[in-house]
Amino acid sequence: MTEEPGRITRRFLSPAVREVHDYLRARMKALGMQVHVDAAGNLRGLWQSQDSSGKRLVMGSHIDTVPDAGAFDGVLGVVIALEWVEIARELKLPLSIEIIAFSEEEGVRFGTPFIGSRAVAGRFDEDLLEAKDADGVTLEAAIRTFGLDPGQIGEAELAEGAVGFVEVHIEQGPVLESEWLSVAAVTAIVGQTRLTFEFIGHANHAGTTPMRLRRDALSAAAEWIAKVEAGACATDGLVATVGKIVVEPNAGNVVPGSVKVSLDVRHAIDSTRKEAVGKLIENAESIAARRELKLKRTRQLDQPAVPMDERLTSFLADAIEAVGLPLKRMPSGAGHDAMVMAARVPTAMLFLRSPGGLSHHPDEAVLEEDVEASLEVGRKFLERLAAEIR
Amino acid sequence: MTEEPGRITRRFLSPAVREVHDYLRARMKALGMQVHVDAAGNLRGLWQSQDSSGKRLVMGSHIDTVPDAGAFDGVLGVVIALEWVEIARELKLPLSIEIIAFSEEEGVRFGTPFIGSRAVAGRFDEDLLEAKDADGVTLEAAIRTFGLDPGQIGEAELAEGAVGFVEVHIEQGPVLESEWLSVAAVTAIVGQTRLTFEFIGHANHAGTTPMRLRRDALSAAAEWIAKVEAGACATDGLVATVGKIVVEPNAGNVVPGSVKVSLDVRHAIDSTRKEAVGKLIENAESIAARRELKLKRTRQLDQPAVPMDERLTSFLADAIEAVGLPLKRMPSGAGHDAMVMAARVPTAMLFLRSPGGLSHHPDEAVLEEDVEASLEVGRKFLERLAAEIR
Repeated sequence: MTEEPGRITRRFLSPAVREVHDYLRARMKALGMQVHVDAAGNLRGLWQSQDSSGKRLVMGSHIDTVPDAGAFDGVLGVVIALEWVEIARELKLPLSIEIIAFSEEEGVRFGTPFIGSRAVAGRFDEDLLEAKDADGVTLEAAIRTFGLDPGQIGEAELAEGAVGFVEVHIEQGPVLESEWLSVAAVTAIVGQTRLTFEFIGHANHAGTTPMRLRRDALSAAAEWIAKVEAGACATDGLVATVGKIVVEPNAGNVVPGSVKVSLDVRHAIDSTRKEAVGKLIENAESIAARRELKLKRTRQLDQPAVPMDERLTSFLADAIEAVGLPLKRMPSGAGHDAMVMAARVPTAMLFLRSPGGLSHHPDEAVLEEDVEASLEVGRKFLERLAAEIR
Repeated sequence: MTEEPGRITRRFLSPAVREVHDYLRARMKALGMQVHVDAAGNLRGLWQSQDSSGKRLVMGSHIDTVPDAGAFDGVLGVVIALEWVEIARELKLPLSIEIIAFSEEEGVRFGTPFIGSRAVAGRFDEDLLEAKDADGVTLEAAIRTFGLDPGQIGEAELAEGAVGFVEVHIEQGPVLESEWLSVAAVTAIVGQTRLTFEFIGHANHAGTTPMRLRRDALSAAAEWIAKVEAGACATDGLVATVGKIVVEPNAGNVVPGSVKVSLDVRHAIDSTRKEAVGKLIENAESIAARRELKLKRTRQLDQPAVPMDERLTSFLADAIEAVGLPLKRMPSGAGHDAMVMAARVPTAMLFLRSPGGLSHHPDEAVLEEDVEASLEVGRKFLERLAAEIR
């Protein structure tokens, strides 16, 4: 189910998404679920327990993808939720389950991520309806073309009675694989700061300018990049990345005159991240000052960490141990719908190992044994939750 | 005299060069010189002393420019040579002088530099006649269009009786200005090695990949760039430059997977340059090995240093001191026609201070007092040379 033959690409509200809806609707109906698509394009199915005292667990993940994606990022979490419903049904648990196949998480079509979960969390910004995709189509028009009414987005908000939200997702990183683990309970979505630094020196002839008379912007940036790496390595759980560098004039026989570098810093604890960023800014300033360069700095993003709900996460953690697996708790370094949902309802996440740490790539994979483990964990988790909310 | 109104651009054999020829021819004839244009497009004027026993000094520099050039790179050396002829004539020195306005030094039109001086030095490669410019015009056709016969390039070679070649040129660097000096005697044209290194690691998600599981190609390159700078600073007269860097995928939220960097190393002593290059290669290898990255390396250029003639240079040095200026000896970090001529005839170079170290730029300048100093030095030099070759 893709927009492009030969590779997986499913942008928000594309015809390929309708195919996914049709498939999921059939599976949901087979489980006896009530199904509808809300005005933000989220497919929602409700499995009503015969004895749930009106309380329900919400589960789900997104069904849109990046271009040329793998098969598991997002949609695996929806399919596993269906299996958890099957388990709850078999066990006749006194707990209803609502599954949400979020319409938009990646931000590919309109440059804004989490459109689906924002609507469900009651945090949809009406201004976004005027945003345009690459073809000049507004979000409002795209919603109408899909057969939905943008005026009803407010009604997509989660109804009362939700006791929690659980998202199952591939890790998209190498940590579980490096520790030979199947699954992990997510503790938080890390906070993130993104900055751009520009070191401004002097472009000079590489042959005629002695070392002592240079104002080499790249040597300055290199000295600082080493500090970024060393600083992150010295702080538990911190990641700091210089991913992008733009050198002027970028010619082999010219001493670099100016260098722009990106900085991306993430940590599950906001104060740790802020302290690290502050230190790296100081490092850049002192390097520039010592070398008599100018330094410019622009902050692009400063996003706080989102902790997962402690109680719901402890149920997941207990379930992992109950099925005989080692308990791994870890933060998520990437954003997820769970990050948005956490503002509305107690939220937890279960990670599955990503072979090779690979994601957003056709070779993205998942191990059958890990999917099996996630179902066993689901069984224990649902039993516990049903007992606790009685 | 330019191809482009509002800025100075004079490529090899362009109509603007013919204007320069007309101007120089008139000045030469006014001095009683015999003038012709050889088949490589070099304008050549001979001032015949009445008593020179057939020996002559050759002087000159190039009259082509880079696009949007300054007013002094090259052509200043030709104009100063005219003044030296005037001095020799006034002093009735028993020494003839041949001035060569070299047709091509910058390599702009055919991608190959030093075409004019190669012909004079007897080192013109016939295959070059088939080289094409950006418009698809061959060198052979360009020579014919200018009214010359490419079959006669062999006759451009320097005739017997030349006792030496002297080129006066702006420094194109900041050294003389930083030491408050007018002129310098050039000791050598530095040798140069150019290499490209590629550090190959793994592109990974900047949020989900812990520091210890990264193979960050940019952090490796940054560590090495610091070694390049430190190594050059620790070796007298060495310059080493990383001027170009290409990062893949070069996105702020992706750990760099591969990084290509250029290396340009220059020194007046070949063994010093080779030792430095060898050490930087070792540094790169050990950094790549420790970080478990692959390293690729390509050598683009390995050009030996060209020492200036000791005796002729000592005459220049003595002349500088004789006019009461501090004696500065320095290598040239850039290539010059003198580098090519040195293979054919004893060669020396005199540098004039470059304000701001600027060259290949419309703001390129020269101080009147430095031009005056170069004429005084010329007077002493010519007197000495005339006395020595008797």
